[in-house]
Amino acid sequence: MEIEIKFEENSSLNYKVFIDELPKLEIDKRVAIITNPKIAGLHLKKLLNSLKAKEIYIITIGDGEEYKNWESINFILDRLFDYKFNRKSLLIAFGGGVIGDMTGFVASIFQRGIDFIQIPTTLLSQVDASVGGKTGINNRYGKNLIGAFHQPKNVYIDTDFLKTLPAREFSAGVAEIIKMAVIFDREFFTFLENSDLKKSEEDLKKAIKRSIELKAEIVAKDEKEGGVRASLNYGHTFCHIIENLTNYSTYLHGEAVSIGIVMANRLALKLGLLRKKEAKRVKKLLQKYNLPTFYKIDDEESFYQSFFLDKKSSDKKIKFVLPNGIGNFVFREDIEKEIILNILKKYK
Amino acid sequence: MEIEIKFEENSSLNYKVFIDELPKLEIDKRVAIITNPKIAGLHLKKLLNSLKAKEIYIITIGDGEEYKNWESINFILDRLFDYKFNRKSLLIAFGGGVIGDMTGFVASIFQRGIDFIQIPTTLLSQVDASVGGKTGINNRYGKNLIGAFHQPKNVYIDTDFLKTLPAREFSAGVAEIIKMAVIFDREFFTFLENSDLKKSEEDLKKAIKRSIELKAEIVAKDEKEGGVRASLNYGHTFCHIIENLTNYSTYLHGEAVSIGIVMANRLALKLGLLRKKEAKRVKKLLQKYNLPTFYKIDDEESFYQSFFLDKKSSDKKIKFVLPNGIGNFVFREDIEKEIILNILKKYK
Repeated sequence: MEIEIKFEENSSLNYKVFIDELPKLEIDKRVAIITNPKIAGLHLKKLLNSLKAKEIYIITIGDGEEYKNWESINFILDRLFDYKFNRKSLLIAFGGGVIGDMTGFVASIFQRGIDFIQIPTTLLSQVDASVGGKTGINNRYGKNLIGAFHQPKNVYIDTDFLKTLPAREFSAGVAEIIKMAVIFDREFFTFLENSDLKKSEEDLKKAIKRSIELKAEIVAKDEKEGGVRASLNYGHTFCHIIENLTNYSTYLHGEAVSIGIVMANRLALKLGLLRKKEAKRVKKLLQKYNLPTFYKIDDEESFYQSFFLDKKSSDKKIKFVLPNGIGNFVFREDIEKEIILNILKKYK
Repeated sequence: MEIEIKFEENSSLNYKVFIDELPKLEIDKRVAIITNPKIAGLHLKKLLNSLKAKEIYIITIGDGEEYKNWESINFILDRLFDYKFNRKSLLIAFGGGVIGDMTGFVASIFQRGIDFIQIPTTLLSQVDASVGGKTGINNRYGKNLIGAFHQPKNVYIDTDFLKTLPAREFSAGVAEIIKMAVIFDREFFTFLENSDLKKSEEDLKKAIKRSIELKAEIVAKDEKEGGVRASLNYGHTFCHIIENLTNYSTYLHGEAVSIGIVMANRLALKLGLLRKKEAKRVKKLLQKYNLPTFYKIDDEESFYQSFFLDKKSSDKKIKFVLPNGIGNFVFREDIEKEIILNILKKYK
């Protein structure tokens, strides 16, 4: 299966996402595979068996969000210079979101930009991070605060890699799939209600494909998140605060998204955008995958203030993405503080 | 005078270069002026008198090429986070090429990209670095090896700032002007032969304008240097090696360009692309501004090997930009090693 990410006719940004068994890749270039020790141990053999290139280098960095920083970026850059990589060389991101985000960022700044391809090995990165060109790192001020938009040349999605994925990480990926369905596609949502992605490989591939199609459409319309792309942040406005308050250590990103979706839905319910029955259906679907749907808020005022630190919020307004029934969304920047605080209080 | 840098109809990349007394700037945003202590002392008063913004911050970094590094980038980024800059904030690059390159790079990676404007204060940055969106830093492997293409929103060129510029730096800027004339515009070259940019403010403005027009045309055709933009590297293939061998401390960039132009012309002469008389005219024009035209090469073999470290060269070929008569250029990748060594030997 192929999906084309098409920005404009003949744009050099256009690329394809292949959802299939990893094909043979013959690349007449210097290639560096950026990965982590764990993924390398589990899956590098398979990649190397499929890959033919002029020269191949393997660069591993630490495994986990805490390595998504300047030190890792410089470590990768230095190795590329050591091996005399040039503008015609290629990087391969082989791992989850951390690897993809960092490889993409390195690709965007190495000699002012070189090509990279994404071979995501987690469900979360397969349905979300590997497509759309968001790259970056964290710093002490927050997550993804430094980075660039840099689209990959191609994305290869092979669900075979998911067989070694822990159940919790699998579910975290499903959260992003559910997110896409709730804001964009009612039919897809019903499909998800009627299937079990843990058990049916076929349904899983369908769900990955549909998620990427939906994302591709949005990203092609608004690469740099000037407008409609912000809809993908449904659930994320709350999620980022929760991740921050728990030091990124209690929840996986997808788990925090799950809680964020439920919180956003409460707000949508309050504003008459979502019916009680619909909110329940979403929550039930999240819970089917053992995703968390509650987070205890100690201090709603300080939680509220944290909204203003988000990079999507402008100076004085909080921009919420809310479902408008299942399958549609609205942006709302006009919600009164009192209303939001009332929602937050329900999480005490 | 205005010049539009026009990439495509309605492209968000399009911007204008204003060559005039610095206008009043009213910006309803948080603004950070990135500059160095010297330029700030000389010219910040003028800028602040012209600028009205929601909030203004001044960030100074070290003065000179040796500060064009990660430390400065992080210093600027941290200040922006301290002051809660967001995607709608604006940076102003106020200084020479080092300031412009770094401000642009920060703008490209801060929260995946924010706007910046260029107010170049040296002749070199006015005619060259401020236009075209090349941004970046140096590292221990070389110059501008890390960076991005990120176009400014506007460029304001005020020749008033040049009044405090040391004569050597002024001449270094003229070298890039002469470069443009030699490869693109025979008439402009004749104009330069007949004027003295040190003495005539009017001719200086004309020369700046023409240089930028020529650059704008090239950059709009080939933003990311996939093809024709590489023509701007006329003289630079030699220049980069000379700068490297002299630790960037003997020559100003424009001075090394001057030597590089003369070396490239010798090669062009040898290949029958340039006549002796033409090569002499170019040299004479460079010397009119006291620009150096000779560099003593100790070891031509190691000089030759250095060509392969340049990021414009691919694995095995050296890409030269050579004048084809005055006012035209050709790319040549096929020149035999012997021919090049013979040219280099003349500099022993």
